[in-house]
Amino acid sequence: MLELLNQHRTIRKYTDQKIAPELLTELLEMACKTSNTGNMQAYSIVVTTDTEIKKQLSPAHFNQPMITQAPVVLTFCADFNRFTKWCLLRQADPGYDNFQSFMATAIDALLAAQTFCIAAESVGLGICYLGTTTYNAGEIIEALKLPELVVPITTITVGYPDGIPEQTDRLPLEAVVHYETYKDFTSEAINNIYSEKENSDFYKQFIKENDKKTLAQVFTDIRYSRKNNEFFSDKYLKVLKEQGFLNQEH
Amino acid sequence: MLELLNQHRTIRKYTDQKIAPELLTELLEMACKTSNTGNMQAYSIVVTTDTEIKKQLSPAHFNQPMITQAPVVLTFCADFNRFTKWCLLRQADPGYDNFQSFMATAIDALLAAQTFCIAAESVGLGICYLGTTTYNAGEIIEALKLPELVVPITTITVGYPDGIPEQTDRLPLEAVVHYETYKDFTSEAINNIYSEKENSDFYKQFIKENDKKTLAQVFTDIRYSRKNNEFFSDKYLKVLKEQGFLNQEH
Repeated sequence: MLELLNQHRTIRKYTDQKIAPELLTELLEMACKTSNTGNMQAYSIVVTTDTEIKKQLSPAHFNQPMITQAPVVLTFCADFNRFTKWCLLRQADPGYDNFQSFMATAIDALLAAQTFCIAAESVGLGICYLGTTTYNAGEIIEALKLPELVVPITTITVGYPDGIPEQTDRLPLEAVVHYETYKDFTSEAINNIYSEKENSDFYKQFIKENDKKTLAQVFTDIRYSRKNNEFFSDKYLKVLKEQGFLNQEH
Repeated sequence: MLELLNQHRTIRKYTDQKIAPELLTELLEMACKTSNTGNMQAYSIVVTTDTEIKKQLSPAHFNQPMITQAPVVLTFCADFNRFTKWCLLRQADPGYDNFQSFMATAIDALLAAQTFCIAAESVGLGICYLGTTTYNAGEIIEALKLPELVVPITTITVGYPDGIPEQTDRLPLEAVVHYETYKDFTSEAINNIYSEKENSDFYKQFIKENDKKTLAQVFTDIRYSRKNNEFFSDKYLKVLKEQGFLNQEH
């Protein structure tokens, strides 16, 4: 089991093999066993296999080929729609049109997503997370017809792996883990943490290909630039407002 | 493996048995293998075992006994502090003081948290998620000395289970899963989805004990009220701003 987690790789290429519907259902059942806030199960999973709907989703994910190539695309959503509808039918006043409720349901959606991934990997499937979900949530809402109080948080493409890629490197544990309280980083600590990565031939080549001086610049200038982050921040906050999760500001 | 996920229970009571440091390290290593945005590994995990610091954390979690009783408390944090410091040392302009970056790191922290939980359960440990983390993030920041661009997202208490509680019920899968696109719920569909829960003796007793007319009212009036949700929304948004994740609004 630990070995399975230790071997995790993102799979971006899939064979033509379909996922049996019974297996998919079983994996979704496992995902829904995950811990969630107050057992409200306030999140939703949209399962897309239809070629036409995958095509409609594709531009929202910047046409990354996994969307149309994977047999199954799962969109995990923050969702207080069902719970709110239930409350309204039961003489109860639902107060879930706010940021705290958004966080609770987003957390639940993500924990379920990761259980799904581990379950899928345990039966030989491969997965890929698409971070583009929070960039173009409005376009996904349109394609999947998501109602008010439903906002996409992450997307997973799933299928049988066509080849097993190299495992991605990780920073030493002390980059992520702090004991007792947070120990902030000196410049020396930062240099130590990043030295292996920065000295690897793989990343030296990567910096060169991107025509940058440092690896950090590849991130700040190309992959996750301030300009893009700010643009997509405004866009996502606008979606949260439109879908009714920021009503407390009124 | 699927059986492990299927048997998931939240464990709120722990034996006195400590978790061996080597085992804890191994579980944290597994958590850090989880998929993350651009392999930036922009999140952090604060591991608290010290009695005094657990006591300082306790009020932030409304003194739920798990915090002081569990041998290990893990606080998973959105964290662009380390990455930003690295960029500044490498002639790169870090643009991560915005909501989109907060979402990316929060997502990564949560996926890692769930991998940790499954890894822990696979070796016989029990876990409990504390949703209070987003209620009293400011108090947690103080107790754990979290710097700018670090915000707690969720907390897990971990230890060896003192007894195995009943498994919590779940709604039928159609409450959570939609096929191809979202199918919004009619009143009849809502009634069907909730009928088993509402007709169980357990929840009938629960409604009675809470002196309410419907199960939904226990949630809206007592457990997750509009007033509290709005209060804690303002509080968490204020923390995001103070920690530097909403700078694009300036």
